[in-house]
Amino acid sequence: METPTIGVIGMAVMGKNLALNIESRGYTVAIYNRTGSKTKKVVEDHPDKKLVPSYTIEDFVKSLEKPRRILMMVKAGAGTDAVIKQLLPLLDKGDVLIDGGNTFFEDTMRRSAELDKSGINFIGMGVSGGELGALRGPSLMPGGQKEAYDLVAPILEQIAAKADEDGKPCVTYLGPNGAGHYVKMVHNGIEYGDMELIAESYNVMRNMLGMSVDEIAGVFKKWSEGELSSYLIDITADILTRKDDLDSGKPIVDVILDAAGNKGTGKWSSQSAAELGVPQSVITESLYARYISAMKDERVEASKVLPKPVGNVKFANREETIELIRKALYFSKLMSYAQGFEQMRVASEHYDWNLQYGELAQIWRAGCIIRAKFLQNITDAFTKQPDLKNLLLDDYFKDIAKNYQESVRDLVGFATKAGVPVPGFMAAISYYDSYRSAVLPANIIQAQRDYFGAHTYERTDRPGVFHYTWYTEQ
Amino acid sequence: METPTIGVIGMAVMGKNLALNIESRGYTVAIYNRTGSKTKKVVEDHPDKKLVPSYTIEDFVKSLEKPRRILMMVKAGAGTDAVIKQLLPLLDKGDVLIDGGNTFFEDTMRRSAELDKSGINFIGMGVSGGELGALRGPSLMPGGQKEAYDLVAPILEQIAAKADEDGKPCVTYLGPNGAGHYVKMVHNGIEYGDMELIAESYNVMRNMLGMSVDEIAGVFKKWSEGELSSYLIDITADILTRKDDLDSGKPIVDVILDAAGNKGTGKWSSQSAAELGVPQSVITESLYARYISAMKDERVEASKVLPKPVGNVKFANREETIELIRKALYFSKLMSYAQGFEQMRVASEHYDWNLQYGELAQIWRAGCIIRAKFLQNITDAFTKQPDLKNLLLDDYFKDIAKNYQESVRDLVGFATKAGVPVPGFMAAISYYDSYRSAVLPANIIQAQRDYFGAHTYERTDRPGVFHYTWYTEQ
Repeated sequence: METPTIGVIGMAVMGKNLALNIESRGYTVAIYNRTGSKTKKVVEDHPDKKLVPSYTIEDFVKSLEKPRRILMMVKAGAGTDAVIKQLLPLLDKGDVLIDGGNTFFEDTMRRSAELDKSGINFIGMGVSGGELGALRGPSLMPGGQKEAYDLVAPILEQIAAKADEDGKPCVTYLGPNGAGHYVKMVHNGIEYGDMELIAESYNVMRNMLGMSVDEIAGVFKKWSEGELSSYLIDITADILTRKDDLDSGKPIVDVILDAAGNKGTGKWSSQSAAELGVPQSVITESLYARYISAMKDERVEASKVLPKPVGNVKFANREETIELIRKALYFSKLMSYAQGFEQMRVASEHYDWNLQYGELAQIWRAGCIIRAKFLQNITDAFTKQPDLKNLLLDDYFKDIAKNYQESVRDLVGFATKAGVPVPGFMAAISYYDSYRSAVLPANIIQAQRDYFGAHTYERTDRPGVFHYTWYTEQ
Repeated sequence: METPTIGVIGMAVMGKNLALNIESRGYTVAIYNRTGSKTKKVVEDHPDKKLVPSYTIEDFVKSLEKPRRILMMVKAGAGTDAVIKQLLPLLDKGDVLIDGGNTFFEDTMRRSAELDKSGINFIGMGVSGGELGALRGPSLMPGGQKEAYDLVAPILEQIAAKADEDGKPCVTYLGPNGAGHYVKMVHNGIEYGDMELIAESYNVMRNMLGMSVDEIAGVFKKWSEGELSSYLIDITADILTRKDDLDSGKPIVDVILDAAGNKGTGKWSSQSAAELGVPQSVITESLYARYISAMKDERVEASKVLPKPVGNVKFANREETIELIRKALYFSKLMSYAQGFEQMRVASEHYDWNLQYGELAQIWRAGCIIRAKFLQNITDAFTKQPDLKNLLLDDYFKDIAKNYQESVRDLVGFATKAGVPVPGFMAAISYYDSYRSAVLPANIIQAQRDYFGAHTYERTDRPGVFHYTWYTEQ
């Protein structure tokens, strides 16, 4: 068989599927897994594929064409460091090592700096699309040395998903060191927001409109044909049609426990936003919603003792209310993306990544979990105005805000009166109202800070820093 | 003069005032500052005080009674490490070093572990109360070795504020290593929440009720006499009566720029909550509100292009509405404290600190910035039930929730319809509604995660972990 053009380390489902994806584009692919049996099984399951297995990491490295191209798909964290440690003595200057794991961007920055010393190129690459995406075409978010990217670009462009709009591959060079994993982190944070807003929409239909799971499935199906068209809306419509695969006979969603897990990327996104001074409320409320959901036993106990609202809220008309929810969902999704892109703008300035937001939105149009028709509008907005400060200031989104804001205002009012939590919708509208407020009551906060801590304040009528003598005894 | 019982390093206002506070209790206090002129000035300004100045750190350490008691009041971070580095060779086993700065708790844990090696006792102590509190009686939050605390307890108990209710000093041993600075961090986070809720209340009165600054001052004055009675409400009432100290003739709040600063403790609190899996939405929304406020120029631009709501909201009756705001504020404050204490409970388990929540609430009753009548109710709640899982489950707070929830629901509805941002109030009511919901829509999120990432889910009807075959091709 030919000398492998690239090698993949880690034969768990993501690594295996990416290897098969690359192979399907005509490449010979070296594969290695710490546990040899996994490697063996992949080869046995795919006898006709151009896969070259190795059972020691030395053989694996030896088997590769130079400069070597190695894609690591191993458990993020200590696992990644361990593999790098094993590889380091075996690699040569100019080889390209890619970490395709869900790695914290600061780890990627650290590893990039360390590997630089030995002249080894390092790419931290976010991979989105789940198992099926990895096999058929994921969205890829690589960050590292540009020259290293160029050495793997032909392969990445072939395996990546292609956008329906223009057939462009969902991969592009994002920037140095941690840029790729940072973008993937924000992508996942946005994913948390999209999922929470969908869950809240379902909850309002279920508990305030008294709709059945089938009826709600129909609504999402309909929404998936309009401006909300997206992968997450599609799969939600599909999910809601599925029956229990065990014996209850119920819709599967009615037997799935309402306790959400998380793998940390939403948490990182929220923590980084706080670090950079970016208000990122939709994603963070979505993270908190998962945390509260996980406190299932505590909630069940609390539900027995904590009083409900007295009010009995009725929506006027079901069809009108469903359209109101749809508009509120689209409006809130927009706010979440505005916050996410603002976070990436601030991060790009802070870490000196020079992110290109238009290209970035382009590679999310297909392959990844948040892929949506909507991303084309974001691409267009940044193409028109590459230095756009906030998505809300783009004409298309401004019109959405104008025409849909009353829906989210009404939804928040009704749901709150009814006692149905809508933290995601709330965060979206309060962000909008705060962002468009020329004057906020932070003057009170500054006065308080100056009063108890002499922290000083600025004035509205002249430059400088001031302190008021609130009391004399000091 | 007598040999100093304790020494204070750092003669900025907090260090100076703490030294004077200690001296006023009959102690001789050694003082030192990197820049000698500052030390000199303190002695010159207070000729009759028992202050022993040193102009080298060696002389300062030599001047102290053994075992030495040293309170560092220097800029948190690198400054603290630098001073410790200088002190280390000069100290003996058994000496007690106290860091009274606003230090990140993980730094305190690291320094505590390092100093342990040389047998030096280290106390990380949160100090709240601002400049005046430091001078007259702050709230002190010390964490470290219990035996070290006992060596300084007599001094700390004398300089600390005393609670009106029972005269108890606002200081107690909180736990090992970072416990004190963690509690101070959450205290400051709660402070962010209190300040934001007050600012939002002011904003609703100002912009929805069209009240003048004087009228609003009267409302806060009245509130400060009831169950909302607290330092922050008091100073807000005072602040609103003050006129510009320059030439505008306006109320001072009308010339203070609405761009809030922060010193990082609220950010740390939010980041730690995210790390520990605790929903801490009121504090975090308050942090984000400060961040958005700081984007003043961007907001002014946005206000020119982003449309307002169309609706024109009128409150029925001013007096009723003010009472509605008061109830909403008290309810929301309660939610914020419930979240803060939940965060400390989870942190205490995670870091093995064995925090005593009742004592902890006790030392916040006076001296500190969040001191309030309200703290006594929290003390009582934890005294009745030391293992109380959430403040909301205490009878007193349950009744507040029951009787005040409609007010916050109405306020959020009205304000949202009017386009007045109330992120703090929103976070409070959505936390309440989520916490008392036996069922949340997280089943949808779990189904989505299992669909695109095979992340598996639990079921409502039997134990175990399950995966649904959403599609066959894998």
